[in-house]
Amino acid sequence: MNIEQFVAQSEGEWRSMRSGHSLAFQQFEDVLSEITIEQIDKDHPDINQIITSSETDKSKIVSPFRMEWTAESDWEPDDPNEVSSGSCIIIPIKTTDSSGKLFRSVGYAESESAESTYQFLSDGTFTLTTCYEQSIAEERIWFVSENVRCRSSVLRTSAGSGILQTSFASEVRRIST
Amino acid sequence: MNIEQFVAQSEGEWRSMRSGHSLAFQQFEDVLSEITIEQIDKDHPDINQIITSSETDKSKIVSPFRMEWTAESDWEPDDPNEVSSGSCIIIPIKTTDSSGKLFRSVGYAESESAESTYQFLSDGTFTLTTCYEQSIAEERIWFVSENVRCRSSVLRTSAGSGILQTSFASEVRRIST
Repeated sequence: MNIEQFVAQSEGEWRSMRSGHSLAFQQFEDVLSEITIEQIDKDHPDINQIITSSETDKSKIVSPFRMEWTAESDWEPDDPNEVSSGSCIIIPIKTTDSSGKLFRSVGYAESESAESTYQFLSDGTFTLTTCYEQSIAEERIWFVSENVRCRSSVLRTSAGSGILQTSFASEVRRIST
Repeated sequence: MNIEQFVAQSEGEWRSMRSGHSLAFQQFEDVLSEITIEQIDKDHPDINQIITSSETDKSKIVSPFRMEWTAESDWEPDDPNEVSSGSCIIIPIKTTDSSGKLFRSVGYAESESAESTYQFLSDGTFTLTTCYEQSIAEERIWFVSENVRCRSSVLRTSAGSGILQTSFASEVRRIST
């Protein structure tokens, strides 16, 4: 598996079931959401706004894509059906065939742009590490069939090795009929 | 990582948060449970009852262990606090340093004894495949710190590639004080 294949396989519309585990409080959060992933052009104007460092070799950009999501969370006590949504652009930069960096317009755990490193494991599992100011997010994504993928994350404190929370999502491709 | 190290690191008492995803019905099941893992002697009398086939080379048994669990499920509509519990004995047979078989006295997805194959991925993730009569369970377990491990499973139909359900558990070691 390489990043081009991984992004190509991820393109489409997904119905996601996601469970978050808050370890200190032993609380569960179950969320249903819709995710859309589509590749964008390497010359897309947003890319220059995200990769501002001149140290990044833009000729190594492969398969940039946009991810959009609409989530329905059960955690808000005031409005159990509150819908949150958002989108981000993700730009892979290939270092070797199985590893590289990802630039994101909006981070996963904190609302700032983020730089991640990625690596594929021996069985094709995609692993991703993102350092934020206060925390480090470790994600892994693997396909269990062409139309089902799993995604797990672990959020740990930057200082020390405390694990704050974990999450797991089962994503099923929406097949157009 | 090899199986001896993996079992040694797994020994102890764990507090588990587990989320099951039923994909067809988009239902969540969140379960809190206690898990105890302890190694047993290679000469334990139960081992001969589990490995009855003469084709299995018992000299290759490494680190057999007992796993006990007590679960509190939220799925039973009649009694939301119903507690289920059980135990099984698991017997690893090493084939190579990073792969082999597991024999279990009681299976995970069906109530019959089970034989699994296991393999470690390049980052130390333990992966396990078990074929039952009607289904195939694929599990993976990885340590995110010394005292936190994650466990995911995918259950697919034996015939065809339908994914029935997935699950994810976050397990935190209980530290004696």
